[in-house]
Amino acid sequence: MANALDLSRRALFAILVGAAICSWGGAPVWAETDPLPSWNDSPSKQSIVDFVVAVTTEGGPDYVKPKDRIATFDNDGALWLEKPLYPQFVFALDRIKELAPQHPEWKTTQPFKAVLEGDRKALAGMGEKGAAQIIVAAHSGMTTTAFNKLVADWLATAKHPRFKRPYSDLVYQPMLELLAYLRANNFKTFIVSGGGQEFLRVFADETYGVPSEQVVGSSGATEYQMWDASPVLMKLPKISFVDDGPGKPVGINRFIGKRPVFAFGNSDGDKEMLEWTAAGEGLRFMGLVHHTDAEREYAYDRNSSVGRLDKALDQALAKGWTVVDMKNDWKTIFPPE
Amino acid sequence: MANALDLSRRALFAILVGAAICSWGGAPVWAETDPLPSWNDSPSKQSIVDFVVAVTTEGGPDYVKPKDRIATFDNDGALWLEKPLYPQFVFALDRIKELAPQHPEWKTTQPFKAVLEGDRKALAGMGEKGAAQIIVAAHSGMTTTAFNKLVADWLATAKHPRFKRPYSDLVYQPMLELLAYLRANNFKTFIVSGGGQEFLRVFADETYGVPSEQVVGSSGATEYQMWDASPVLMKLPKISFVDDGPGKPVGINRFIGKRPVFAFGNSDGDKEMLEWTAAGEGLRFMGLVHHTDAEREYAYDRNSSVGRLDKALDQALAKGWTVVDMKNDWKTIFPPE
Repeated sequence: MANALDLSRRALFAILVGAAICSWGGAPVWAETDPLPSWNDSPSKQSIVDFVVAVTTEGGPDYVKPKDRIATFDNDGALWLEKPLYPQFVFALDRIKELAPQHPEWKTTQPFKAVLEGDRKALAGMGEKGAAQIIVAAHSGMTTTAFNKLVADWLATAKHPRFKRPYSDLVYQPMLELLAYLRANNFKTFIVSGGGQEFLRVFADETYGVPSEQVVGSSGATEYQMWDASPVLMKLPKISFVDDGPGKPVGINRFIGKRPVFAFGNSDGDKEMLEWTAAGEGLRFMGLVHHTDAEREYAYDRNSSVGRLDKALDQALAKGWTVVDMKNDWKTIFPPE
Repeated sequence: MANALDLSRRALFAILVGAAICSWGGAPVWAETDPLPSWNDSPSKQSIVDFVVAVTTEGGPDYVKPKDRIATFDNDGALWLEKPLYPQFVFALDRIKELAPQHPEWKTTQPFKAVLEGDRKALAGMGEKGAAQIIVAAHSGMTTTAFNKLVADWLATAKHPRFKRPYSDLVYQPMLELLAYLRANNFKTFIVSGGGQEFLRVFADETYGVPSEQVVGSSGATEYQMWDASPVLMKLPKISFVDDGPGKPVGINRFIGKRPVFAFGNSDGDKEMLEWTAAGEGLRFMGLVHHTDAEREYAYDRNSSVGRLDKALDQALAKGWTVVDMKNDWKTIFPPE
């Protein structure tokens, strides 16, 4: 994939530059080169660079040791597009259609009936409970290994209805640069998503350079079972953790055990993660991606059912957090095809 | 602490040697120096070194990329001593005594009555349910920040009844060397413990060089709350995950998302972690610490209520896993005072 290649080249560059400058906790690398070429010169970009310079300047008042440079990113709407539907939900809908022949009862049972009939009105009205039923049915009843293959196969074939590209191509180039910039400055980058962590882990390393052990997300229960003397982990039809809203600080504490110094989100589901980050001692960075670009991506905020940004926007404006204006702050949205 | 200083010196040495040799995924460092000086020359030691050489030899049949070099270690009985009682359980008992004035009902309610009266017979017979009640009562009803301070204060003052040293001094010097040796060879070392991950994280970085985000363990539920406009995470009286036995592969999948290539335990609670590791493709290392040294530490296995090693020992012997004979394989047990 173009973006994966691009990221690999970028990672190689970061290693070479990092090795040359030997910046172990010192001044930020890329001081001579623009670390964020897809960002227009803007207060948003400046706030990021200022923060990184401040926390990596040894002896400075805001210095943060490398081991405490924890950066957390939401995924849907913050690292990749989430409209018109969360990609993982599209995966789940596709999976329900595939599984339908084994479930004749779905023809007459909601919310499955609505999925199979493409009944948009019923789908829109199914609520969280219906969505959870679809997610659970699509994500359980197989081993973790089988699930990973299903996701990989889906990602390799599914295309976004508007952009006609694979979903893992529809990541934000400016955010890929930001992830690489932070890592080049000895930050450890984590994804903290309301989406499923096992779904995310299938592509997070190749797409974002974030290894599986740095992916925090919602999850279903699994059970250790022996099949013909071989151990497997079965995915059970039970949600075990919802990493969204007030669940995000809980997930951060459970998985990372440290408070981030840098956090980026885009919706009300990220409000508590940003609050939790802001409440730490010392300099912190809180950022929101504001989807303002109907032409190149989508424009939505307070009234969107997907990725609603309302209370978190109020808080960001009141507290002076960085709000990225996608239309004006980003030169490009997606990596080149 | 002596061991922390020792570890820091060791870490510095690893960085210097690593930088000098520039062994990015190449041959193991310390080829000229003994990486495991506290280990007697023995089949156990040889099996470790052989494994590390094999998986780090680029172009060799058993080569493992650095990002897949995941090593998991149990804690109680594998990295530090667990007799006569798991140290975290001693912490819980001490905490119950401290909290007793606020809980007059404990004077007449088991298992608390037994703790307060020092009734060894009742304590021994309280079973898992009673132990869980004590753990929950000692580990909830405060914020995560307050809990961390309680643990740090306890670790700074509590001493082991036999060795008269702080518990975090009673770690196994040969295992500290093993952790450092693996990290010097670009392994990522994780703790995967039946003990509480929040308890462990208070000392794991300083004591073992394992950062909080690489500590997997049992955990209680937490809840995000606002106190006077400041967010806190409250520890609730509810166990949310038991990372023991069949829970260890579940925890490894949930937190790490990759199968280890190297795993070390010491009890039946580690059996499934070792099985899960062994069932991966390619060369794997499975090890058990067998407590055989009554003089310098303790000698116990099949009949011990703490750290029972019975079924896992059978499996290790049947499958040729490495079984460390503490008495004969280790030159020293604990770091010098």
